[in-house]
Amino acid sequence: MKSVSERWSRVFITSVSPCVQEGDWPIKRIVGESVNATAGIIVDGHDRLCARLHVTRLGGATEEIPMTQGHNDEYTGTFIAEAPGLYTYHVRAWVDRYGSWQEQYKRRVDGGVPETELKVELLEGAALLKEYAVNAHRDAREQLLAFADEYAAGSVRAPLAQEPLRLALENDPQRGSVKSTVITVDVDRELAGFAAWYEFFPRSSASVPGIHGTLDDASARLEGIRDMGFDIVYLPPIHPIGTTFRKGKDNNPEAQPGEPGSPWAIGSPDGGHTSVHKDLGGLPAFDRFVKAANKLNLEVALDIAFQCSPDHPWVKEHPEWFKKRADGSIRYAENPPKKYQDVFPLDFECVEWRTLWEALKDIFEFWIKRGVRIFRVDNPHTKPLAFWIWCLARLRNKYPDLIFLAEAFTRPKTMYTLAKLGFNNSYTYFTWRHTKEELTTYLQELTTTNVVEYFRPNFWPNTPDILHEYLASGGRPAHIIRFVLAATLSPVYGVYGPPYEHLVANQHPDREEYADNEKYEIRTWNWNDLDSLQTIFRRVNRIRKDNAALQQMRNLRFLDIQNPLMLAYYKSAGPNAIVCVVSLDPFQAQEGVVRLPLEDLGLPAAAPFQMLDLLGGERYIWQGNHHHIRIEPHVMPVRIFQILRRVRTEADFDYFV
Amino acid sequence: MKSVSERWSRVFITSVSPCVQEGDWPIKRIVGESVNATAGIIVDGHDRLCARLHVTRLGGATEEIPMTQGHNDEYTGTFIAEAPGLYTYHVRAWVDRYGSWQEQYKRRVDGGVPETELKVELLEGAALLKEYAVNAHRDAREQLLAFADEYAAGSVRAPLAQEPLRLALENDPQRGSVKSTVITVDVDRELAGFAAWYEFFPRSSASVPGIHGTLDDASARLEGIRDMGFDIVYLPPIHPIGTTFRKGKDNNPEAQPGEPGSPWAIGSPDGGHTSVHKDLGGLPAFDRFVKAANKLNLEVALDIAFQCSPDHPWVKEHPEWFKKRADGSIRYAENPPKKYQDVFPLDFECVEWRTLWEALKDIFEFWIKRGVRIFRVDNPHTKPLAFWIWCLARLRNKYPDLIFLAEAFTRPKTMYTLAKLGFNNSYTYFTWRHTKEELTTYLQELTTTNVVEYFRPNFWPNTPDILHEYLASGGRPAHIIRFVLAATLSPVYGVYGPPYEHLVANQHPDREEYADNEKYEIRTWNWNDLDSLQTIFRRVNRIRKDNAALQQMRNLRFLDIQNPLMLAYYKSAGPNAIVCVVSLDPFQAQEGVVRLPLEDLGLPAAAPFQMLDLLGGERYIWQGNHHHIRIEPHVMPVRIFQILRRVRTEADFDYFV
Repeated sequence: MKSVSERWSRVFITSVSPCVQEGDWPIKRIVGESVNATAGIIVDGHDRLCARLHVTRLGGATEEIPMTQGHNDEYTGTFIAEAPGLYTYHVRAWVDRYGSWQEQYKRRVDGGVPETELKVELLEGAALLKEYAVNAHRDAREQLLAFADEYAAGSVRAPLAQEPLRLALENDPQRGSVKSTVITVDVDRELAGFAAWYEFFPRSSASVPGIHGTLDDASARLEGIRDMGFDIVYLPPIHPIGTTFRKGKDNNPEAQPGEPGSPWAIGSPDGGHTSVHKDLGGLPAFDRFVKAANKLNLEVALDIAFQCSPDHPWVKEHPEWFKKRADGSIRYAENPPKKYQDVFPLDFECVEWRTLWEALKDIFEFWIKRGVRIFRVDNPHTKPLAFWIWCLARLRNKYPDLIFLAEAFTRPKTMYTLAKLGFNNSYTYFTWRHTKEELTTYLQELTTTNVVEYFRPNFWPNTPDILHEYLASGGRPAHIIRFVLAATLSPVYGVYGPPYEHLVANQHPDREEYADNEKYEIRTWNWNDLDSLQTIFRRVNRIRKDNAALQQMRNLRFLDIQNPLMLAYYKSAGPNAIVCVVSLDPFQAQEGVVRLPLEDLGLPAAAPFQMLDLLGGERYIWQGNHHHIRIEPHVMPVRIFQILRRVRTEADFDYFV
Repeated sequence: MKSVSERWSRVFITSVSPCVQEGDWPIKRIVGESVNATAGIIVDGHDRLCARLHVTRLGGATEEIPMTQGHNDEYTGTFIAEAPGLYTYHVRAWVDRYGSWQEQYKRRVDGGVPETELKVELLEGAALLKEYAVNAHRDAREQLLAFADEYAAGSVRAPLAQEPLRLALENDPQRGSVKSTVITVDVDRELAGFAAWYEFFPRSSASVPGIHGTLDDASARLEGIRDMGFDIVYLPPIHPIGTTFRKGKDNNPEAQPGEPGSPWAIGSPDGGHTSVHKDLGGLPAFDRFVKAANKLNLEVALDIAFQCSPDHPWVKEHPEWFKKRADGSIRYAENPPKKYQDVFPLDFECVEWRTLWEALKDIFEFWIKRGVRIFRVDNPHTKPLAFWIWCLARLRNKYPDLIFLAEAFTRPKTMYTLAKLGFNNSYTYFTWRHTKEELTTYLQELTTTNVVEYFRPNFWPNTPDILHEYLASGGRPAHIIRFVLAATLSPVYGVYGPPYEHLVANQHPDREEYADNEKYEIRTWNWNDLDSLQTIFRRVNRIRKDNAALQQMRNLRFLDIQNPLMLAYYKSAGPNAIVCVVSLDPFQAQEGVVRLPLEDLGLPAAAPFQMLDLLGGERYIWQGNHHHIRIEPHVMPVRIFQILRRVRTEADFDYFV
């Protein structure tokens, strides 16, 4: 409890929003997005309040924005986050003594109170203005005193003017005296809020089967990826791979000669986290890759996995950064009695933790200097949260355009906390949410609770680690369904592309992941296959770019459709509105009646409107709330409608007038 | 945002509940009620956590309660508030390093890891125990070191015992290292949580019409009030009444000679807030009244209205406590252009505010010393909130059994803030909530949101200031409906008794209040009238006392009943369960089908059960979820059922076995 002295003010700010844990953590915004700040503010009795929103760009100026009183003593003010980096905002309020006096004075005048009584009140107004003048700047002081004199002289109409009110407001010595919690706003660039990610293994990008692809081979694939409409190419680790306890095909504990190993077993005598595998072409090939990507307006995201193979140079150079067993050997990763001897975890709590933490931060800086601004962080939840607070704050402070994606498939509170402490994007449970109930419940949590203020989902239908049963068994329709759900439910999404687009979905018999997994072997893909889903990728990404409604998360609204195997929802942004109807059944035809909330969508109740299916191109003419939709999954399991409000009638033509 | 250094711990407490504004204000409990504390706690990786609830009675000892892990990383612990006054609680957590080691060790043993490897791990366990021993008390230290030696000697079964785990837990040097916000618990005595209030004007308690009743006349009414089952008698102000600008009958601005004036125009040459009106018999009669009440196990609540008539002694003795107009006259109350010249407000912000605040606090202390422990505070929202924080904390610290009822019929945020800052009971909007929608929405807000942690409603169907249209037009059924709603929806309720029980409900033509209002004149009432609602009062108060379910607020659950003019709800407490079905229509018969959630009520789905109507005495035999109820308001507009679970069947008799 605060002490009485801290509270001895007549004004109480009872709440401020948006905020996360009363300001303990920042809220997140994308450049150009607004913050609609609301504060509950009360005062005893009936005096008028003034409230201002104070917005500061870190290291910049403070702006004061007047707040307006709404229903139930809620005051609101809005500002726009214009540049990446940190802003803070807080609310200040005070009793508007002069304004309260003036209001009562006006009511006296309007109520016909005699002049003799008004003159007594005028003296009080004059006294207030004189008090306000004491610390005012010279010009204002003179004006305030002039008004005070006029009041004292008995000029009963003088306080009805606006000017003394304005002057008083700006010079009230109690102005801004009550201050709310300060709330930080972490502002990201656009790509953190609207982006399509494409993941592929560069070593699988050669044209000749069985040959280890290089980053130059991968560069040759970029144009195709760009043409499919993706914004970010994300590469699994590209570093030298250890040989000690190297894993073979399908995670076989013993690799056969010639097997390439897992890219997550980082480090060999050739180097560690700041080296590039020599079969990929080394650093020069990487630099060419980044350049080629940027030329195509693509950005490169790297996978940062803080773990070492037993052959990582740090094992010899910095044994102090690893945990030892009592016999002096380095402790490998394990989940007793299982052992993962190809990986040494780092000991974030070792005696030399400061040098380790700096070295890890330096890894990011190394790649930042080579043009990388986006990082997918592997398993951040197995490293101390305090490390991420420290590391991300320092890096983002220097490079406000960085984007960190947390690959934390773990418990809800940990995932949410990683987002609070600075990760800009997060992997989600979307990958495992397939039924209407699952999808609706989870999306409501992500879009309608306070989670939306700090957790920015990045929806993935698949990853090299996860191939869900639904994709494994549902064929082409299932792949389209899950891709469209990811790309339309969430403005940020990604796909582990090559196997997905070719509908390669053989599950490993023991695990929920791909068989013949690229994590352990080199594959070859057809990079220009019109029969693959590449066409769908291209069309859906085009639709996303053309429709502002699909570029936000908060605007998702589910629609009633009386079929548990169909999901319907809409998103709107200004005049743009998109309605998606998705069959969740990849096998059988499904039909249902969807209910459109005409008023919310700005649609006429009494006239027809057009629904343009952006995938198929059909233009439906609809009228009213309820519409029957039948979906045949083998034709196209989803509809993405754009609402075109206008349908011309005879009244629109000249001759009708 | 907290600095990194404050956060450098692997453990994060993400939330603690119950709390009000993250611990800024206390939560409230009644003596004997429990606090079920929950904390969200996470750690990176897979280590085990320990969490303890630390509970301190202010000025007393601290108790440590182990918390148990539930779903979604929520840890819970419970304590009971045993005495009135302040408690605090907070959560402490830490990584259980030994426990984590031991768990992994067990999995190694179970997984058949060879002894040689186990022995390496044992050395690590030994090292941990040695570290724990450093600051342990002597006995524990010796035991820890003995176990460490045993481990070091290679005794592979030793860590499977419970004792080293227990010792380690109690002696972990990191024990309790992460600490949550401290939350205060304000504990009230029973009467703040379960009580029936009866308000009457003592001057109307004489037997002879037109005669000013005394507090001795009022004493004679106490037995009747006690017999009706009330716990608290609440008297409007009993002080000398001013004559300057005295109000006449029905708020007439000019009193006729002999009119008694409003008890809220406090103060005359006879005295102020610490005097008793001489026509009431002065202080000696008051002392006799308190004594008589207490003898009957009734408590007296006084009305404290911090305002003065122009004749109040303070006007001459302490002119510095009043606001002056510019012409030197004291500012009377006004709502321009309306004037209330019979009342001078006090200036809480005057230069001498400290002496004024002390004097106001002394008023409470004066009556406390005369045996009063319950105060109904008039219009607290027109006095600075800071005054109440200061005043209530000081008084409650000295007298933890005080109960303050806030008479603030004002805006929601202000009402809630007054409750947060210390008022134990609050007037509510119940007085204006009459439709099913209004009642349901409001009660959901009071019982299912965080409001329940600090705002303790006191439901009043009427007051001397408020006679709602519903009562004015609905006759006897309306009076029964509103009384039973107040008494069964809320464990604390009150009634302005005399006009209510006699169904006197003439509205003033211009205002939503009683005509011929007792505020301005003396009335005479029949204090023993079997045809009045006194019988209903008695029966309902008896039902409340006999049924624990009606003595709580949080346990309210609304029931589905397919009629917008009928309201159904239940409350249960342990084996006691009450179902109320109320017709909101005071004129016509209504019928509906109520749906009972059998499982929640612990009722058999496949067997009959009894429903005893506690008002009428009928015993219904019901079976299943749905039950048709018809209510004829002129017979009895409400049903208060007690559920009697047991209905004997032939299987219960000996011969059946």
